[in-house]
Amino acid sequence: SRSINLAVIPGDGIGQEVVAQGLKVLSAVLPQDVKLETKEFDFGAKRYHATGETLTEADLDALKQHDAILLGAIGDPSVPSGVLERGFLLKLRFAFDHHVNLRPSKLLPGVATPLAGQPEIDFVVVREGTEGPYTGNGGTIRKGTEHEVATEVSVNTAFGVERVVRDAFARAQARPRKKLTLVHKNNVLTFAGHLWTNVFNKVAKEFPEVTTDYIHVDAATIYLVTDPARFDVIVTDNLFGDIITDLAAAVSGGIGVAASGNINPSGEFPSMFEPVHGSAPDIAGQGKADPSATVLSVALLLRHLGYEAEAARIEAAVSADLAERVGQPARTTDEIGDALAVRVAG
Amino acid sequence: SRSINLAVIPGDGIGQEVVAQGLKVLSAVLPQDVKLETKEFDFGAKRYHATGETLTEADLDALKQHDAILLGAIGDPSVPSGVLERGFLLKLRFAFDHHVNLRPSKLLPGVATPLAGQPEIDFVVVREGTEGPYTGNGGTIRKGTEHEVATEVSVNTAFGVERVVRDAFARAQARPRKKLTLVHKNNVLTFAGHLWTNVFNKVAKEFPEVTTDYIHVDAATIYLVTDPARFDVIVTDNLFGDIITDLAAAVSGGIGVAASGNINPSGEFPSMFEPVHGSAPDIAGQGKADPSATVLSVALLLRHLGYEAEAARIEAAVSADLAERVGQPARTTDEIGDALAVRVAG
Ligand SMILES: CC(C)[C@H](C(=O)O)[C@@H](O)C(=O)O
Ligand SMILES: CC(C)[C@H](C(=O)O)[C@@H](O)C(=O)O
Repeated sequence: SRSINLAVIPGDGIGQEVVAQGLKVLSAVLPQDVKLETKEFDFGAKRYHATGETLTEADLDALKQHDAILLGAIGDPSVPSGVLERGFLLKLRFAFDHHVNLRPSKLLPGVATPLAGQPEIDFVVVREGTEGPYTGNGGTIRKGTEHEVATEVSVNTAFGVERVVRDAFARAQARPRKKLTLVHKNNVLTFAGHLWTNVFNKVAKEFPEVTTDYIHVDAATIYLVTDPARFDVIVTDNLFGDIITDLAAAVSGGIGVAASGNINPSGEFPSMFEPVHGSAPDIAGQGKADPSATVLSVALLLRHLGYEAEAARIEAAVSADLAERVGQPARTTDEIGDALAVRVAG
Repeated sequence: SRSINLAVIPGDGIGQEVVAQGLKVLSAVLPQDVKLETKEFDFGAKRYHATGETLTEADLDALKQHDAILLGAIGDPSVPSGVLERGFLLKLRFAFDHHVNLRPSKLLPGVATPLAGQPEIDFVVVREGTEGPYTGNGGTIRKGTEHEVATEVSVNTAFGVERVVRDAFARAQARPRKKLTLVHKNNVLTFAGHLWTNVFNKVAKEFPEVTTDYIHVDAATIYLVTDPARFDVIVTDNLFGDIITDLAAAVSGGIGVAASGNINPSGEFPSMFEPVHGSAPDIAGQGKADPSATVLSVALLLRHLGYEAEAARIEAAVSADLAERVGQPARTTDEIGDALAVRVAG
């Protein structure tokens, strides 16, 4: 019989509330014969304050024993900027080689967008997750003086770029439009830009059915608000991906519905699924958070583990739920989770 | 008697057409007693193909003899990506120490925006222009092999950050709302991020009337489409500034009306003014380009040289012209230039 052995990291702020709904919907959607086992981990601000730890080797060993990881949100104003980001979130992405950071953007019917005219939006960003300006390379000299110099080194390897570009081509190939756009800034960042462009053009030869184009990251932000329908699959660097996926989330319904997967395609390490939003301490504990992004992240998780039908059921449920919200009074986090659990079971 | 000694670089594509209108409006707006002298330079793709040169030491010496520079656009698909950008545009910004890259965004009445609900938009981005990931530091090893490694080094100095941050505070202080937002990614790029944040907080003490806040660059793109009215003055790094000002242009009327100044505040070198848009080779020579961005760049140029009344007259003229376009047939580049020249003279 089948089983899912899931590591659960509720984390900080609204993380707790939204993950509870994600698990509720997951339990409801799974067939009877699938055994779901979950183990909760206490990472985040509370543990950091209590122990000074963010993510130890023992933690990584424990997480490794799971089929996948569901994360709510990590981050709290009581912790200095960067400590949990570099010490937990990025450490985990790097340790588990989550090089495919998958962020779909789909504007569902009835969902509000800041854009006029309710454009068609249905694309996926494949963001590189283990290189670029995120490596932590660089440093500071003469810190705190008027002669301080701080550097950040973006590291890009043919190995790292090629595997994520190939993954993106395969995803484009599997979609009806079969279109892949490389987003970079190769006219200014010429070293990294040439590597990305050359690798992209080389791998393109293996996928003759996929239409390709290239746009600079600055121009990409223009298209995301003036013509988002031009995008099908986007592949891009870690930092550019961070920036354009927040914008993509904003135009396609907001970060309340933006899901993501930090994927290790080889399966050597468990992949991690999380909403794009943060811990939102200002609304934590009030039942105001929209759990849809987490529930959609559970759908990505299920698809990754091979449960395609269940993933599709969750996506249809969220879509129907969002369409019904128009003109209705706001519901609590828990109420939305309950409604989604009913829908996916039915 | 007063005089303006202007270096003019029409450049490539639509650059020629829009600069002609900029000069037309400039001549029309200047009082009789101001002597305008212009010298045209032939930089761009044509010169590169003819001579292999982009910008020589002798060119820099010649440009230096002017009070300011007006640029149309540089770039052509016949030139490999990066050659004119690094060899001309960035070389000039670095050589003339254009560390304040000023990019105002104002949604004028009647102007179309991709955003629903015609929000209030009136802010200025002060983008650092001589540091960050734009320095060209970095390199490539094992080029073209499967073991290639390409690096890009973002270089940030206390000297460079402090002068642009101080400039931005002074601009915020001079505006009615007196609000300054630092945009960075200090939770991931911790070396550069801490330098920017510390310098920002230090300089803030000298400007007690200015309200400050900080947001990550990814979140900034969200606010730019969901709540652009929250911004008054933004100060940011070279690359983040590049990205968010294209988005800012898109939401506030498009790159047809986005002006910029590459400013050397000390006056040691001439400052350069240019539309944010590129050379748009697809519409070049057809009289389709909107010269408004260039004309508004002329206004920034005049303000920089102390002609505040003339700058304001140009801005009012463009604003009135844009408001009158609604529902009217499209006019040619030349017709718009003529109309603006009439308005500023009148
Ligand atoms: C919190 C931060 C480290 C993270 C990132 O920059 O990747 C977040 O913005 C994201 O997009 O997942
Ligand atoms: C053309 C390019 C070098 C330039 C930049 O990246 O600064 C442009 O995008 C701009 O914003 O002026």
